Amino acid sequence: MPWLPTPREPLLRVAVTGGTHGNEMSGVYLARHWLQCPEELRRPSFSAIPILANPEASAACSRYVGQDLNRSFTSAVLTSRATSNDPYEVTRARELNQWLGPKASGQAFDFILDLHNTTANMRACILANSDCCAFAMHMCHYLQSGETFSLQSVAKMGLSLELGPQPQGVLQADIFSQMRALVASSLDFIELFNQGTGFPAFEMEVYRHCGEEDFPRTEAGDLAGIVHPQLQDQDFEPLQPGAPIFQLFSGEEVLYQGDRTVYPMFINEAAYYEKHMAFMKTEKTSILVPALPPLPAAAPIQTP
Amino acid sequence: MPWLPTPREPLLRVAVTGGTHGNEMSGVYLARHWLQCPEELRRPSFSAIPILANPEASAACSRYVGQDLNRSFTSAVLTSRATSNDPYEVTRARELNQWLGPKASGQAFDFILDLHNTTANMRACILANSDCCAFAMHMCHYLQSGETFSLQSVAKMGLSLELGPQPQGVLQADIFSQMRALVASSLDFIELFNQGTGFPAFEMEVYRHCGEEDFPRTEAGDLAGIVHPQLQDQDFEPLQPGAPIFQLFSGEEVLYQGDRTVYPMFINEAAYYEKHMAFMKTEKTSILVPALPPLPAAAPIQTP
Repeated sequence: MPWLPTPREPLLRVAVTGGTHGNEMSGVYLARHWLQCPEELRRPSFSAIPILANPEASAACSRYVGQDLNRSFTSAVLTSRATSNDPYEVTRARELNQWLGPKASGQAFDFILDLHNTTANMRACILANSDCCAFAMHMCHYLQSGETFSLQSVAKMGLSLELGPQPQGVLQADIFSQMRALVASSLDFIELFNQGTGFPAFEMEVYRHCGEEDFPRTEAGDLAGIVHPQLQDQDFEPLQPGAPIFQLFSGEEVLYQGDRTVYPMFINEAAYYEKHMAFMKTEKTSILVPALPPLPAAAPIQTP
Repeated sequence: MPWLPTPREPLLRVAVTGGTHGNEMSGVYLARHWLQCPEELRRPSFSAIPILANPEASAACSRYVGQDLNRSFTSAVLTSRATSNDPYEVTRARELNQWLGPKASGQAFDFILDLHNTTANMRACILANSDCCAFAMHMCHYLQSGETFSLQSVAKMGLSLELGPQPQGVLQADIFSQMRALVASSLDFIELFNQGTGFPAFEMEVYRHCGEEDFPRTEAGDLAGIVHPQLQDQDFEPLQPGAPIFQLFSGEEVLYQGDRTVYPMFINEAAYYEKHMAFMKTEKTSILVPALPPLPAAAPIQTP
């Protein structure tokens, strides 16, 4: 498995983004809080900047106002000419790309931590880019949580924290505290690395995206059923062929037709009804993450 | 305590309304289902009609598109002249009032059952009008659930079913089934009454609205804290003076300042952030509900 090169310099430009989806409240309110009290994001070698990624959607307490911001960081969007008809999130994506990118450039931020909530029973889940970034995997390992699979990236590296279950538009104290603690640990990990700590290779279990399952639908495209009670809240548990996955409004059960065991996640996530996804299918696999060598001792770090 | 007179004729005009709030999915999808399969709402003496109360908000999966429909059935709204600037829900409230009312008139529907979800941990909760309607209380008793307090009413009588916890925009099988069963039992109760069954007086515990508590806020009006983890999900449990109710983002606790025990409900309901309510306060009390006399045997009921 080809891995991206590990960083050879300290990570000094780090951003923590909340409210990429305006109704995922832990990140919205953590970002707002840190904008008032940024000292919580300071470490000796760097200060992470807090960003409320989608202020208009956050004000409206909706996922987005024009289109999904977290699907807007494509090259097509970022490089096309601005027009007066652009949805708000297209304009905002270009703005964030200017601040934190440009995407895939040498000037880009070193690391972005993007904060999300889900209505699914996924507890604390870390979503990593499908590019194989050993640094991000070492951070995951440091956070002592194994679940990973995909994400945006304007910065050189990044991770999403996805915490649930929490309804949209609701702040729950336990999830808020857990997200705050995970962000603190992530920054601590970067600090350790910046100060010259290396990390040995290790093996870790990951859940790799391998497909999606839509709800049962009528010919007109409306929902014809609901996630089966036996599947609800069973994120990351094995789903065997033949197990019930939906209950039709008529009362009938729909069984899983796949030919092998998968591990569903995002089961019954509110935001994915419109994306025609009742749950995401993943395979459980094990990867060997190479060592993260310590930074060369050359340049001593200035406290900013 | 003065009680409204009990009905002296069978209840033949009955409506079941879902999607009064378009992101409370159990009612939205039950109404849509019954519009396709109305036989589930038939009883020998009557057929309840299913109504998707707010189709535009349901299509948008939002609580409302212009203003809260469930706060729009005021005399001022219902009797004022229509203008082209009216919010959608104002127009829709007048339309529903034409179909199901007019409110407080002899022509009004006999009974409306209005279906809601909450993100609060309220389980199956029945909200009754503050007018003392023995018929509705007997229906509550029949449904074997005690919690009651308030509601809209275009019809002569009505109840709201409020089931949770369920996130907005999500359909959960257990809550869906429970709501379906409660509606069936409510119709069975009306059928029993229509067929000449009387019901004896009884005593019941109710939770009566006695105030509201807003979130702690900054001077600018933003949230300054979050429902305390010890209060989260404790709907209908006693809240003592001095108990912690909020956790500030700064880490401090806010204690309940009231001078007597109350029973909170709608704790951390998503829809009430904008209404400046972190929870509703109720008093637990006991009421004696008078007997519901059987209908005079005079008019035999025609099967429609």
